[in-house]
Amino acid sequence: MSSDTGPLLETITVDLDDRSYPIHIGADFLSDGALIQPHIRGTQACIISNETVAPLYLKQVTEGLSGFGLDLISLVLPNGEEFKTQDTISTIYDHLLEANFSRSSTLIALGGGVVGDMVGFAAATYQRGIDFIQIPTTLLSQVDSSVGGKTGVNHPLGKNMIGAFYQPRCVLADSLTLNTLPDRELKAGLAEVVKYGLINNKEFLEWLDGNIEKILARDADALAYVIKTSCVEKATIVAQDEKEAGIRAILNFGHTFGHAIETAMGYGKWLHGEAVAVGMVMAAELSCLEGLLSSDDAGYVKKLIARCGLPVEPPQELDSDTFLALMGKDKKAEAGTIRFILLEQLGKAFVSDEVDLERLKSGLISRN
Amino acid sequence: MSSDTGPLLETITVDLDDRSYPIHIGADFLSDGALIQPHIRGTQACIISNETVAPLYLKQVTEGLSGFGLDLISLVLPNGEEFKTQDTISTIYDHLLEANFSRSSTLIALGGGVVGDMVGFAAATYQRGIDFIQIPTTLLSQVDSSVGGKTGVNHPLGKNMIGAFYQPRCVLADSLTLNTLPDRELKAGLAEVVKYGLINNKEFLEWLDGNIEKILARDADALAYVIKTSCVEKATIVAQDEKEAGIRAILNFGHTFGHAIETAMGYGKWLHGEAVAVGMVMAAELSCLEGLLSSDDAGYVKKLIARCGLPVEPPQELDSDTFLALMGKDKKAEAGTIRFILLEQLGKAFVSDEVDLERLKSGLISRN
Repeated sequence: MSSDTGPLLETITVDLDDRSYPIHIGADFLSDGALIQPHIRGTQACIISNETVAPLYLKQVTEGLSGFGLDLISLVLPNGEEFKTQDTISTIYDHLLEANFSRSSTLIALGGGVVGDMVGFAAATYQRGIDFIQIPTTLLSQVDSSVGGKTGVNHPLGKNMIGAFYQPRCVLADSLTLNTLPDRELKAGLAEVVKYGLINNKEFLEWLDGNIEKILARDADALAYVIKTSCVEKATIVAQDEKEAGIRAILNFGHTFGHAIETAMGYGKWLHGEAVAVGMVMAAELSCLEGLLSSDDAGYVKKLIARCGLPVEPPQELDSDTFLALMGKDKKAEAGTIRFILLEQLGKAFVSDEVDLERLKSGLISRN
Repeated sequence: MSSDTGPLLETITVDLDDRSYPIHIGADFLSDGALIQPHIRGTQACIISNETVAPLYLKQVTEGLSGFGLDLISLVLPNGEEFKTQDTISTIYDHLLEANFSRSSTLIALGGGVVGDMVGFAAATYQRGIDFIQIPTTLLSQVDSSVGGKTGVNHPLGKNMIGAFYQPRCVLADSLTLNTLPDRELKAGLAEVVKYGLINNKEFLEWLDGNIEKILARDADALAYVIKTSCVEKATIVAQDEKEAGIRAILNFGHTFGHAIETAMGYGKWLHGEAVAVGMVMAAELSCLEGLLSSDDAGYVKKLIARCGLPVEPPQELDSDTFLALMGKDKKAEAGTIRFILLEQLGKAFVSDEVDLERLKSGLISRN
């Protein structure tokens, strides 16, 4: 992972040998096709967006890419986590095959995490793998899901159960797109930002503590710093462990609880970031229960997340048996155990397979 | 690619850095679980077979793997290319999720190329990738599809359009399973064997010319030699070019024509090897039309393939416009052109993007 600074734009590189790629971070450059075009190897490209984002930004991106002699098409998907399914992937396949798109074509994902995950998975599996480019337009996708190559769709029995590790050729994060993001989604994205501080960067955590109000008010400088720092954190961890054999798992802090909440409530009712927010509070409380974290520190986590305007309690209708059973279905679960990411202190997370599930149930889950 | 010889078994290694794997070739070792078990990293394994192969060999493989403390389940799929679909892949996902199979589980493909391609693709995409093992039970899959990591399913608009490059942990080719293989399928497998001779090994081609009758009579030594030589050929080419950026494309000799035939006739009516057989005859005739191969040599190819008991003429109901249009949909096609593998001599193939499609149509396709 390296970083260099220009006047308009900063570029971070995710170091993954022959699959390395740049993340361009800046403002108001969506129509700058010259940034995108070098990453399109063939002549065919398809911009895939959703019904919410397409009316806002599809025209800019399309016009920016005109004049390069591309066979450029687009596809607009329905919006929402409930459409993150194999069926939507089939819609993408059909569109590409009907347009005679070859193995040297490129997909461009323009939208949030759902669009990015699906376009990445379609790219990973169309004709055994074609190129793709990420243009994330939500805070969540700019700071998290567009970086690192996790792609996939949900299954009725679990979130992101079907997918692949597949790296984009390039990521463009334009902070100006956050101006059209609903408040609820901005806050949901902030959950993953707080996560980087909690698991790996106490200094950033303290900075966040002092700047939450600025971020929520969409201060441009604060947002730029948030995106850049988050991407650097994520890129550094991913470069060490692309396929999550070890250290990368700490990025799942809060996600074991969070995925269970999302699955139980039905995809799309709770936003991913909201479920992760509650999950992080619970993971901090579990770290406390395991004797690792002080109750003051667990309380600090809860308060910080509440100040972000995020939920801190799991849904009341989720009973403890269901909660535990769903956590056992999480991908991170080894057979017969549940894997948790715990905090040994604020700013330092680790992976544990040794949580006492009975104690968890009686001490934490049943209490909520 | 290396090879060492033991009393019962030969092992070839496919050299792909950290994704290298052994191909064990021998007779009557399906129940030798000790050969398989070292390649199972977790405790959960699922043997996936089809309705034809399961009654013959599933019990042997299952019993061989007992006593290793595995959580071993199985799944029997319907038999045939027409079931090589996304729907069948979903059946596999459902089965694994219902059994709570984790990311450290292993799939074992027991069957022909269709089973192997689908199990490989399910493994590539279940929880972003789990381990899999190939136990091919047809000549075609032993000499071709189980080696090299091409996995996938068909789409109504094209064969193998959805898939991934994903390498198995190990391949076991037991020639005894060929004793239960129908004649038609043995011959279909032979098409790919002849292909290795035509594209890259004239000596092997001459050996085949002198031993076709022995192979068709299922002479054990002849079959063992065929499997080993074919696997060495394929492993050598794959090790040079895993993702088919260059040389690997010669393995598609006959396949541009062949896939068009399969797509036009509906999957499963013509066997893959039968379509490839006709495709190789047409590719040899095209090489002749392009002034590369003598008409004697093209005639030799046609006669050799006919002696294998394979078809040498395309289906009459396939008109030339449809034929060309379907070839343009082949994955090997770049936008606007059709990529062919041609012979510059017997035993030497190369990739050409420069075939004159009008001449092809008038000189070859319309004639058939």
